[in-house]
Amino acid sequence: MRIKEIGQLKDQANISNLYGWVDNVRDHGGLTFVDLRDFDASIQLVFDKDSSINVNLKNEFYIEVSGILKKREEGLINKKVSLGDFEVEVNKIIIISQSKALPFQIEDGIETDESIRLKYRYLDLRRNEMKQNILARSKTFKSIRNIMNSLEIDEIDTPTLIKSTPEGAKDFLVPSRKSPGSFYALPQSPQMYKQLFMMSGFPNYYQIAKCYRDEDSRKDRQPEFTQLDLEFSNANPDIVKENIESIVKHIFDEAFDIKINTPFKSISYAESMSLYGTDKPDLRIKETITDETHVFADTEIKFIKEAIQNSGNVLSLHTNKTLSRKDIDRLDQLIKDAGSNGLGWFKILDEELSGPLVKFLNQNEQNHILSKGNGILLFQSGEFKEICKFMDILRRDVFSIENTELPNFLWVEDFPFFEIEDGVLQPSHHPFTAPKDTDIFKSNPDESIALHYDLVLNGVELGSGSQRISSPEIQRLVLEKWGLSAEEIENRFGWFVEALSYGTPQHAGFAIGIDRLVAEILKQPSIRDVIPFPKTQSGMDPLTDAPTTIKEDDLTDYNLRYISDEK
Amino acid sequence: MRIKEIGQLKDQANISNLYGWVDNVRDHGGLTFVDLRDFDASIQLVFDKDSSINVNLKNEFYIEVSGILKKREEGLINKKVSLGDFEVEVNKIIIISQSKALPFQIEDGIETDESIRLKYRYLDLRRNEMKQNILARSKTFKSIRNIMNSLEIDEIDTPTLIKSTPEGAKDFLVPSRKSPGSFYALPQSPQMYKQLFMMSGFPNYYQIAKCYRDEDSRKDRQPEFTQLDLEFSNANPDIVKENIESIVKHIFDEAFDIKINTPFKSISYAESMSLYGTDKPDLRIKETITDETHVFADTEIKFIKEAIQNSGNVLSLHTNKTLSRKDIDRLDQLIKDAGSNGLGWFKILDEELSGPLVKFLNQNEQNHILSKGNGILLFQSGEFKEICKFMDILRRDVFSIENTELPNFLWVEDFPFFEIEDGVLQPSHHPFTAPKDTDIFKSNPDESIALHYDLVLNGVELGSGSQRISSPEIQRLVLEKWGLSAEEIENRFGWFVEALSYGTPQHAGFAIGIDRLVAEILKQPSIRDVIPFPKTQSGMDPLTDAPTTIKEDDLTDYNLRYISDEK
Repeated sequence: MRIKEIGQLKDQANISNLYGWVDNVRDHGGLTFVDLRDFDASIQLVFDKDSSINVNLKNEFYIEVSGILKKREEGLINKKVSLGDFEVEVNKIIIISQSKALPFQIEDGIETDESIRLKYRYLDLRRNEMKQNILARSKTFKSIRNIMNSLEIDEIDTPTLIKSTPEGAKDFLVPSRKSPGSFYALPQSPQMYKQLFMMSGFPNYYQIAKCYRDEDSRKDRQPEFTQLDLEFSNANPDIVKENIESIVKHIFDEAFDIKINTPFKSISYAESMSLYGTDKPDLRIKETITDETHVFADTEIKFIKEAIQNSGNVLSLHTNKTLSRKDIDRLDQLIKDAGSNGLGWFKILDEELSGPLVKFLNQNEQNHILSKGNGILLFQSGEFKEICKFMDILRRDVFSIENTELPNFLWVEDFPFFEIEDGVLQPSHHPFTAPKDTDIFKSNPDESIALHYDLVLNGVELGSGSQRISSPEIQRLVLEKWGLSAEEIENRFGWFVEALSYGTPQHAGFAIGIDRLVAEILKQPSIRDVIPFPKTQSGMDPLTDAPTTIKEDDLTDYNLRYISDEK
Repeated sequence: MRIKEIGQLKDQANISNLYGWVDNVRDHGGLTFVDLRDFDASIQLVFDKDSSINVNLKNEFYIEVSGILKKREEGLINKKVSLGDFEVEVNKIIIISQSKALPFQIEDGIETDESIRLKYRYLDLRRNEMKQNILARSKTFKSIRNIMNSLEIDEIDTPTLIKSTPEGAKDFLVPSRKSPGSFYALPQSPQMYKQLFMMSGFPNYYQIAKCYRDEDSRKDRQPEFTQLDLEFSNANPDIVKENIESIVKHIFDEAFDIKINTPFKSISYAESMSLYGTDKPDLRIKETITDETHVFADTEIKFIKEAIQNSGNVLSLHTNKTLSRKDIDRLDQLIKDAGSNGLGWFKILDEELSGPLVKFLNQNEQNHILSKGNGILLFQSGEFKEICKFMDILRRDVFSIENTELPNFLWVEDFPFFEIEDGVLQPSHHPFTAPKDTDIFKSNPDESIALHYDLVLNGVELGSGSQRISSPEIQRLVLEKWGLSAEEIENRFGWFVEALSYGTPQHAGFAIGIDRLVAEILKQPSIRDVIPFPKTQSGMDPLTDAPTTIKEDDLTDYNLRYISDEK
């Protein structure tokens, strides 16, 4: 029996087949007291030290117990635990399995190094705080299944050994033994397959899918992650967003007992960037960025002048807090670490300006800055997107979050279709996203807007979706504008363009990162804390030591060998 | 709107936003008739050929329609389809997406080559019979989620980039870019991780998991397959079997509307082999195998004599059917193809024996065979397990299935712990299975029985499970008896033996092959027919052409190169 079931029993009830871990052993006045713990509950066991129950129990021994349930006397009730008013007077203990000495204690708030916790993850998960995290993850799955049933969205599964695209950079690859020298790829998402379901006539689709990205170590990413993946036929962004709001509302309520309001607020990408310096703003911080470019039109400050001449901007944040020189130096370093040339600032106190740049200000600029009132004006000048990054960092550091309890949801929309990444024109979502206006896309793709919408929770990107291209001509055009040659289009996406050519419904979809969602709701520092068996930042598993080398002989089956073996 | 929703509307209702594929276009007496089809239904559209609706429609064009719903006149009602008493008098058609000429028709019973169907799988899935298969798969998922909820079994997920075991033979491998020269493996099942959940304190676990086996082409296998994976703490085989029966009963009822009876019949492995020649017998065939070894104790027939001297057996099947010489030759070839030396047979007709071996029979043998009655006695002699294979083939070929409608479930239990496979002692289930009797296992592992149970449906192995080893000592012993050196045990399973060493509950589990289950219930010839996007027998995907080669440059990231590039 489970320990929690004791709650339904009466004083003097016979207990048998009670299983659990030894949590604590105490000898006291000829009696031995043991806390017995299982998944949901714990109970005190008691027996005469010199009785026939002659067992040597240690922490984490797994035992089976028989005995009599006893109501504790009033003064001995432990009000801190749910079954604290009972104990089991033991008449038999069977040790199912002993335990070696523990690498860390099974209790909350331990300060053990994470790599040790991951090496003994099965012990780490016995700790209440980790157990609650994994349970919350499981409840999230369950609440997703339930809302999908009520929305009549069908679960269908997609293949995970798929086509590797030739550039292959971020795909995990799987060499084939049957076709030596050839590779499958693991999916970065079920994107093309879920679109194929719409082309196959299915009205909708969902899947909780494992996705894989072989990214260079970035903060808090995992090589494999879990997403709720959705697609709807005959759909548009409004239909998808409405569904996502119902789904998110349901998950928060059913799995976390948190009530949220829908519909969510929505802003454009352009507005988000200019007010918050980011496309995933945390609106719980009220303060916004101001564009001061026009104020500095005739500036004498050289680096600002140059920035404006290069079509750059001057962006500011004003706080009425008093910042010390030390505070300013810290902020300066913070944004320098992110690539800034340094922090610009003016202190305003009782109609007086101070700071290293004050002497270069003209009257107009001085008046403008003074009008902000007491406090400090922080600013950056330069290329808009570049300095937005620093303003976002400053905003999140200088200002505080109002009401950390209420989750803050936000739709961000009207993203540019393309963005320059590492000097290359890239679709800002993915190349299957429909442009908002096909004519503009054709004539001026750089200024085209994508039908792409992100869902942001507390400044964290929770999910992303888009209207998909349903025309083979537009699909081909997007791939061309992306810079692919006719041959590359044919090799990598020819089969997909072909699939669009047999009568394709309009369709749109979304994906929500489940690891991120659960970590954010539970306020966990890392998604590793809500994944049962995660990898470290460098993709290692301290428990099993994966990944490992394999024998050279086994490699030849794949027509491969190690480079280092040559010479 | 979906076409099926028309059923809720009245005559003369306004129809708009009706979407679907053009299934058929017919011109008749100045009118154009179009069958419009979506996922669930179809309806007839009608418009004046020379009207303003000046569109050139072809099959599989995807269109949006507005119009007026009209009740058809009595004589014009199509009683074959659900909305056959209505048609839509169209006043507007928008072509959403055109279709190229189709590689095959969107209809049931096509005889198109499977590789073409797979290349255009998105069209293949538009065909009703395939759509129903995938829908049944989806309903199976849903019914599994529902019964798991009522049994309070929690969904938890396990990692899929795991440790590769050094022999690596059947694992799919995933080279690591971050640890060049090292590999992850894709899981053949979540076996060790689900056991870790039990060690972590979870009372139970389920997951619908993708599993991977890089097997040589065997009949109707896929490189990736889908299984319902389960584990229970404090469990034994009876608890697991009872749960599996509830689960299977629920799936059949909810997803397929088939009522089945539980508990299922159960037989031992030994009984199954001697009666049916297989460990997955189809009990819908009533006839069983007879062991005739004792009858031939003093035989003059040389090959039988030799077989018996080599501790072999003589196994027979008797049918009262009349088999022609042609029938016999066919059976002879059938088992020769499987490795037999040939079919032994005696015809019995009105107290007379005939057949090539009759002249070598002694009186005792003749009397025994005659006592079987009119018909034919088919037999094989040789090593028991070897000839069982041929007897199983003969039994399934010669005798017929009674009542093909009722699913026939069977538990097979008490498997030998080890079996000889390719001359090597192998655990017949997996090395985490508990022996039935530890003392026997220690003294005589070859004769030890495993706490392993298979579920068989209509002669197909549907699932498999076992009591797991919960003691690190027994686990180590099993790995030793399997033939692993201390070093191999440490490298491959050391972390797992360690995990068992901190107080491990008794635990047991099961896994059901979902592809196989759905294919069997729907009587589909291959599991490919119930998988949305399957691979061919040789692991290729005709749709995307996966697997594909990758650029040599990309390989160097993994510290790998192609063998063929060397010289």
